[in-house]
Amino acid sequence: MADKPAVVLFSGGLDSTTVLAHAQRQGYRCHALSFRYGQRHETELACAKTIASRMGVARHVTIDFDLRQFGGSALTDNIDVPKSASVAEMPAGIPVTYVPARNTIFLSFALAWAETLGARDIFIGVNAMDYSGYPDCRPEFISAFVHLANVATKAGIEGSDGFQIHAPLMTLSKAQIIALGLSLGVDYAGTSSCYDPLPSGAPCGHCDACLLRAKGFEEAGVVDPLVQKFLGT
Amino acid sequence: MADKPAVVLFSGGLDSTTVLAHAQRQGYRCHALSFRYGQRHETELACAKTIASRMGVARHVTIDFDLRQFGGSALTDNIDVPKSASVAEMPAGIPVTYVPARNTIFLSFALAWAETLGARDIFIGVNAMDYSGYPDCRPEFISAFVHLANVATKAGIEGSDGFQIHAPLMTLSKAQIIALGLSLGVDYAGTSSCYDPLPSGAPCGHCDACLLRAKGFEEAGVVDPLVQKFLGT
Repeated sequence: MADKPAVVLFSGGLDSTTVLAHAQRQGYRCHALSFRYGQRHETELACAKTIASRMGVARHVTIDFDLRQFGGSALTDNIDVPKSASVAEMPAGIPVTYVPARNTIFLSFALAWAETLGARDIFIGVNAMDYSGYPDCRPEFISAFVHLANVATKAGIEGSDGFQIHAPLMTLSKAQIIALGLSLGVDYAGTSSCYDPLPSGAPCGHCDACLLRAKGFEEAGVVDPLVQKFLGT
Repeated sequence: MADKPAVVLFSGGLDSTTVLAHAQRQGYRCHALSFRYGQRHETELACAKTIASRMGVARHVTIDFDLRQFGGSALTDNIDVPKSASVAEMPAGIPVTYVPARNTIFLSFALAWAETLGARDIFIGVNAMDYSGYPDCRPEFISAFVHLANVATKAGIEGSDGFQIHAPLMTLSKAQIIALGLSLGVDYAGTSSCYDPLPSGAPCGHCDACLLRAKGFEEAGVVDPLVQKFLGT
């Protein structure tokens, strides 16, 4: 088990860093996979690179492609990221930060890498509790992808053991995710969650991701070291 | 119907060119999607560009990424493409030209574009008859992807009409595909099928794709205009 390979989808954010620490604690030899897909900023990729190195992953690969060729999301297109004063005031429904089929694309690449490595385990930090309402963060999506993976691949149809998608954060609140990460020794000061960070890399504080993160730290009773770092408090 | 948008996976090969002609004949406004994924040669992409323009697609997008970062296939890695004297002598089983999760990745991008366009129809030229034995060319794979598409997307969970993946070649022999294409006016001289073309762009004649194509033209009782073009006969 100690050397069992796994692919971990890894954005450099709070959730995926927690997942990486969790997979490593379970004994997986982790291959971290990030994407430069035309997102508005490089902050999270810089965080991903530093954290992957610090956490000693087996390999860290960043795949480049440009979803701006399709458009259609505030994260990739020329649409403003919505800002609110609090989680309670976040607009209802699936927000414009939704990127069509993003997690489907990400998991497809993870599947390709896993099959190449001989790995059967893929980790993803999706969460259906304190989340933005994206359809590709739900348990139904993960189940559907597992089924697809096992009919789409040589490993799936020839092997005796199928692919597994681990989504260990699925039913955790943001506060519970933070508590889990802290128990695993995660340093959240190095993670980035903000959809629209300032040029300094500081979080904007008012996008959905910032608000959900702040609520999580508040409920966990812990000061966010990222905010502390930028505010100097 | 005349203006119903569709995304067509389009490699510039015999199969996908036939599918494009078929979708256009059905009245779809076709958006052709190609990939530069680290394949060994650019011949098919050059063909795709020329054919897409000649056939008057609504838009042709080529997405770039590099599957060589993962390795593991003769089409992207430093492994020789197998050559045989005839279809009967092709090695059994899934060949080394299999690219892990390739069609899963391709369909994921097609889904992203379709959702952005407001399209619900995706066309793919997979074929489970005269094919190389790839797992992601089978009906089970297509069904699994349709299910995934409809739980993965905003359009899938909010809309009344789900995504459809059209695989009109699925149960056709290569000869039947060619007959269909010819009836739709496809000019196969511009298409490329070979896995390992010569620097001139001429097909090698002995990879699986060349052998299956040659057998198809033979059974259809038609001379392959591509071979004619390069042999000058």
